[in-house]
Amino acid sequence: MDYYSAHISRLIESLSSLPGIGVKSAQRMAFHILDMPEAEVEKLSNSIIEAKRRVRYCKQCFTLTDNEICPICKNADRDQSLIMVVENPRDLAAYEKTGKYEGVYHVLHGAISPMLGIGPSDIKLKELMQRLQGDVKEVIIATNSSLEGETTAMYISKLIKPTGITVTRIASGVPVGGDLEYIDEVTLLRALEGRIEL
Amino acid sequence: MDYYSAHISRLIESLSSLPGIGVKSAQRMAFHILDMPEAEVEKLSNSIIEAKRRVRYCKQCFTLTDNEICPICKNADRDQSLIMVVENPRDLAAYEKTGKYEGVYHVLHGAISPMLGIGPSDIKLKELMQRLQGDVKEVIIATNSSLEGETTAMYISKLIKPTGITVTRIASGVPVGGDLEYIDEVTLLRALEGRIEL
Repeated sequence: MDYYSAHISRLIESLSSLPGIGVKSAQRMAFHILDMPEAEVEKLSNSIIEAKRRVRYCKQCFTLTDNEICPICKNADRDQSLIMVVENPRDLAAYEKTGKYEGVYHVLHGAISPMLGIGPSDIKLKELMQRLQGDVKEVIIATNSSLEGETTAMYISKLIKPTGITVTRIASGVPVGGDLEYIDEVTLLRALEGRIEL
Repeated sequence: MDYYSAHISRLIESLSSLPGIGVKSAQRMAFHILDMPEAEVEKLSNSIIEAKRRVRYCKQCFTLTDNEICPICKNADRDQSLIMVVENPRDLAAYEKTGKYEGVYHVLHGAISPMLGIGPSDIKLKELMQRLQGDVKEVIIATNSSLEGETTAMYISKLIKPTGITVTRIASGVPVGGDLEYIDEVTLLRALEGRIEL
């Protein structure tokens, strides 16, 4: 891309290394950045490096946080004996957005995948088992509804059951507002199996 | 977004201010950045602020460059008497990618738009007229094929014609590989009007 200045080429290259950003989008972003006031550009540049330098895992639940313990784990109003197990911080955020979950979380940072060579020791599973030594009543497994997510859910439930702690799995089924016509067969079957009496 | 750390929220907010980046994409980018090695993140962060600080307009053609005069204007192998007028540096890049254009450029940084209140004095038109005092044989107007682009093309051609310099406009028509069935009527009519003898 030598028809741009070296600095622009470098910027486009850096931006296009981000997920979901092709060269065209990177180009559009780069020119937008060049048009922004310098103070705004500094803010963007700093927010990137600061996030990388300051953010770490919560010592308890392993979500990303600025402090040793995340605000959710530190919150006395949350039920610390109810742990929802999720694959990553984005999934935690998805449940937090509902505003209805009162328990705490445990972030696995992945899911078991024999295909990708990711085993139980590659995710934060040992750390989950350690937490269960404390006062825990229920573990809700909210891994994704994918092959890896289901495998992980099965594995965890087998590990926890002998401890006597209740293990549950979030329901699979037709999404609210979903049109049956457009929903895949596996989901339809899951919805049927998981039917509840009215 | 207080379910993320303050630094992550700030990063997501900064990223989502970029064009074409919604909150979901910004989130995905932010988590990707947190997973990148620190050296890579520094490179990204620096490329943003460096581009903003170092890049300026070429004194001759007004494209974005690291130097006083851009590599194209400085290149003795390019025909300096042939000037292609484009709306912005991305359009220049599009023609440079063809590798077939031997002349130089003039970047207007916009197009005349009475709707948006952008007049002839808001784009680099005076600067174009000054360049025409030199040894120029032809001005190719390659503004976009939009209302604004066409208005600008008409305006420029009227300004230049009295000087005796040849003014041309890039052709409008059916894109190569384009299927007539899916092409809008205006383009079809342009293609008809612009037909050439075989």
